[in-house]
Amino acid sequence: MPEAVTEFLNAECLLMTTIRQLGERALIKRLGRLLPQTRGVIVGIGDDCAIVRTVSDKSYDLVLTSDPVIEGVHFAAGEKPLLVGRKAAGRVLSDLAAVGAEPLWALVDLVAPADTPVTKIEGIYRGLAGMAGRHGLTIVGGDTAGGACLELHVFAVGRVPHGRAILRSGAKPEDVVFVTGSLGGSRAGKHLRFEPRLAQGQWIRARGAASSMIDLSDGMASDLRRVAEMSGTGALINLAGIPVSTEAMKGKGGRSPLSHALFDGEDYELLFTVPVRKAAALERAWRTKFTTVRLSRVGSMTAGRGNVKCVGPDGRHTLLKDGGYEHFIGSDT
Amino acid sequence: MPEAVTEFLNAECLLMTTIRQLGERALIKRLGRLLPQTRGVIVGIGDDCAIVRTVSDKSYDLVLTSDPVIEGVHFAAGEKPLLVGRKAAGRVLSDLAAVGAEPLWALVDLVAPADTPVTKIEGIYRGLAGMAGRHGLTIVGGDTAGGACLELHVFAVGRVPHGRAILRSGAKPEDVVFVTGSLGGSRAGKHLRFEPRLAQGQWIRARGAASSMIDLSDGMASDLRRVAEMSGTGALINLAGIPVSTEAMKGKGGRSPLSHALFDGEDYELLFTVPVRKAAALERAWRTKFTTVRLSRVGSMTAGRGNVKCVGPDGRHTLLKDGGYEHFIGSDT
Repeated sequence: MPEAVTEFLNAECLLMTTIRQLGERALIKRLGRLLPQTRGVIVGIGDDCAIVRTVSDKSYDLVLTSDPVIEGVHFAAGEKPLLVGRKAAGRVLSDLAAVGAEPLWALVDLVAPADTPVTKIEGIYRGLAGMAGRHGLTIVGGDTAGGACLELHVFAVGRVPHGRAILRSGAKPEDVVFVTGSLGGSRAGKHLRFEPRLAQGQWIRARGAASSMIDLSDGMASDLRRVAEMSGTGALINLAGIPVSTEAMKGKGGRSPLSHALFDGEDYELLFTVPVRKAAALERAWRTKFTTVRLSRVGSMTAGRGNVKCVGPDGRHTLLKDGGYEHFIGSDT
Repeated sequence: MPEAVTEFLNAECLLMTTIRQLGERALIKRLGRLLPQTRGVIVGIGDDCAIVRTVSDKSYDLVLTSDPVIEGVHFAAGEKPLLVGRKAAGRVLSDLAAVGAEPLWALVDLVAPADTPVTKIEGIYRGLAGMAGRHGLTIVGGDTAGGACLELHVFAVGRVPHGRAILRSGAKPEDVVFVTGSLGGSRAGKHLRFEPRLAQGQWIRARGAASSMIDLSDGMASDLRRVAEMSGTGALINLAGIPVSTEAMKGKGGRSPLSHALFDGEDYELLFTVPVRKAAALERAWRTKFTTVRLSRVGSMTAGRGNVKCVGPDGRHTLLKDGGYEHFIGSDT
């Protein structure tokens, strides 16, 4: 085909590409190129939070994050208002936990059909205020607008001591991979009732042992892959070490409990990496500090860049397919 | 009727009240009661922005604001992507201008149907980046999700020197009321093409002469009423002083140009009040500093709490009806 024709077809093809075809991550990458990162930006687009610094604050960096909670996407239309609000605050708090930040303030944009009962909105805000208040996050404002379905967009500001935020990009080959709590219970309701791991995130940050951290929102396999990609490493998951939740054990829908634990989104647990020599001491200290929240070794980072494998009880290594949740594309593991 | 029956009916009535019946302002007031304002909050819910302070920043307060831009509410479905993005950034910038703040960072939540062309989203982000960049606002992150229609939720952080933000609540009786630019052009397209008055807002703040300020988003009459209510004053508008835009002069739709200038939302000009003794000097300095942006005296604050009147060429005072735009209820002046 003549070069001019190929070029024309490529251009036409791009013109017709939808965001479903492109997928969320590729879209964010493209949009990131349009947004120059200047002015006190320590970490911009691509991590759990943005980390920024003003010249006038000599001791803390600010941590910024936002999350939507949309009817039909993040909760079902008939869901209890209190749980919807709770989730909306919980999602940004989980992002702050993932860099080890302390929550400060939030704004909430509410979108709702005009015929929504006032009591329903008040129920949502009670849920928001309860969850935010428990973790020291003050909701200081926001905006409201009419729309086709109910949505909350929560924007949160937190802080970490200068340069101490734990990023996704710091893992090194051989680092031990830990996860908090248990995995795979989101479809049984945990996605509405999780407790963001703020105390744990701040404790991990204060110990100074973790080389990277992320909160599990898209699925453990998928989120670990992001840590590996951003750190320029690979990872090896030991399937026998995965803390499968009792909800996932009940195994509805024909998928194995392990598949739920590896691929279901919205666990809102923390996954973090620790150099081998510091791992055992951290585990011991954890057990003294957090008696009710489990900590599990689930694998280690490897040198094979972007290469995420798992090892089963039979000792065989297999490449892990990427099955986490991606917006616009959806999930069907 | 027996008391128990009345009580039952009142409770039932509240249960059935929709947010359309209540209206945006009453809703925000009710929700505000559910949200305790603690922890370094200088100004919480109810002003253009929230103003907050960390103990570690000795010289600046942070200014937080958010605004939605929704297809079918804030822009028509077929609108140019560049203008949609431009408006989304412009709205938060106008909020920052209204307290005299300097823009720093923003996050953007994007909601879009999965079949949206990538090029359309990129066009929107070009508009966002262009407007943000012109005013020193860096977009550092955000989130994306699928949804029924296109929406942008922009969250912005700015700063002002400690205690120097200009609020809506500081006007005093007899203060002169000024507005920037001209009013009533939003329906002819200005709502998509306005330039937020950041340079002017910061200049006004630096001069230290203004007692209150607001950006005109719901309509001049309505926004002036909010300044009066929050300041515990009244206001008297001199109709002959209103800077009616040439677009409003063309007068489509059977309403008078003055009615457009008083009641149409989305002018994104600044309205501010200045003590009488400082007004003339400020006007002179303005004309030297801003040669292309008009400044008009449109009236003065009065002692009659919440009482907004206007005086026409015939010298008669009449009460001004409240006809600005309110979400969930809409506008039909």
